[in-house]
Amino acid sequence: MKLQVAIDRVSLGYAVNLAEKLDSYVDIVEFGTSIVKDYGLIEIGHHRPAFKHAELLLDLKTFDEGPYEFEKGFDAQADILTVMGAAGADTLAGVHKVAQNRGGDLFIDLMETGTDKIAQISGFTDAIYGIHHSHDAVAGFDAVATVADFHEQFPNVKRISVAGGIDLPTAERLAKQGIAESVIVGSKIIKTADPVAAAKKFMEVIK
Amino acid sequence: MKLQVAIDRVSLGYAVNLAEKLDSYVDIVEFGTSIVKDYGLIEIGHHRPAFKHAELLLDLKTFDEGPYEFEKGFDAQADILTVMGAAGADTLAGVHKVAQNRGGDLFIDLMETGTDKIAQISGFTDAIYGIHHSHDAVAGFDAVATVADFHEQFPNVKRISVAGGIDLPTAERLAKQGIAESVIVGSKIIKTADPVAAAKKFMEVIK
Repeated sequence: MKLQVAIDRVSLGYAVNLAEKLDSYVDIVEFGTSIVKDYGLIEIGHHRPAFKHAELLLDLKTFDEGPYEFEKGFDAQADILTVMGAAGADTLAGVHKVAQNRGGDLFIDLMETGTDKIAQISGFTDAIYGIHHSHDAVAGFDAVATVADFHEQFPNVKRISVAGGIDLPTAERLAKQGIAESVIVGSKIIKTADPVAAAKKFMEVIK
Repeated sequence: MKLQVAIDRVSLGYAVNLAEKLDSYVDIVEFGTSIVKDYGLIEIGHHRPAFKHAELLLDLKTFDEGPYEFEKGFDAQADILTVMGAAGADTLAGVHKVAQNRGGDLFIDLMETGTDKIAQISGFTDAIYGIHHSHDAVAGFDAVATVADFHEQFPNVKRISVAGGIDLPTAERLAKQGIAESVIVGSKIIKTADPVAAAKKFMEVIK
């Protein structure tokens, strides 16, 4: 299973520096929506972290104007861009086309996307489907059970990612479960005294 | 009825210059999501247009991390910020609270928000509810009929805004209908040779 580390709510300089430190150890570094909306894609593109190993995901959370946002996101040298599963069918088709044309990956964030809607949009065989517990949500989240349920309901979805308060034991259980392609960890790595050491610990339990 | 002019897919410099030219004539100037995601809220805050008359709406299209994004949006001196109606209940409650604390307006964008969900979130009596036809949508949109239907279904919603390919005759019909508080016009003003003249024409037909 891959580890995606989400960097959020910090300065762009701090994010780029941390991203380059994480590069050798983790699979994907995410610049969260807070970085995108605070600094913008033009500035992020100018300071795109220099990676030798990891991929860069920009969490655009596109909801409309899909092709425009995805062109700008790939211009900023992202490898993976996100769209909301709750967005319209035309938006999803639009970003899928741009991702294919630009040779990038499409990540469909399923936050607040109902089962019927997921069924309608589950046919992008090359896309990553992100099971995502809202940051703002007060209620808890059992990531392992949610992934199992999702896999049973949508066996045709091959690429699954999971996010939302993932800690070390949960990451280990998800790796053993063997369904998810990647797990996204934010504060449990970023908000520690030594994020690189914390990321290494996550890599150890998920390999 | 108020006129909101949406500026999108241009440089921040062009947007600020045009916004200041429109200030005396229109009620609300919107910097669209493309401006927010291209330039970021920090840079927009540094170049916030100097208005004597109009209000500034920043189309954040917030879907998660509501309080964080709204604090940043009001820090950039927006008067009105947008959240997606399709976002989670906790996100909507969070941004509503921030808008109240900061003395700003909350605009709930109802794009791709189902009827059941609208019913659940229709209780923010001071919020503006935006009936919004997706930019990416291929199918057409009858704004006048849609507003009438919405008003009949949700009579408790007092503040209604409508957007999506609105032209001069449609704006006039919406004003005569007398339900919507504001109409949002983008390309029909911005993409003309003389946007200020085009905005004045819209103001004439809706007053």
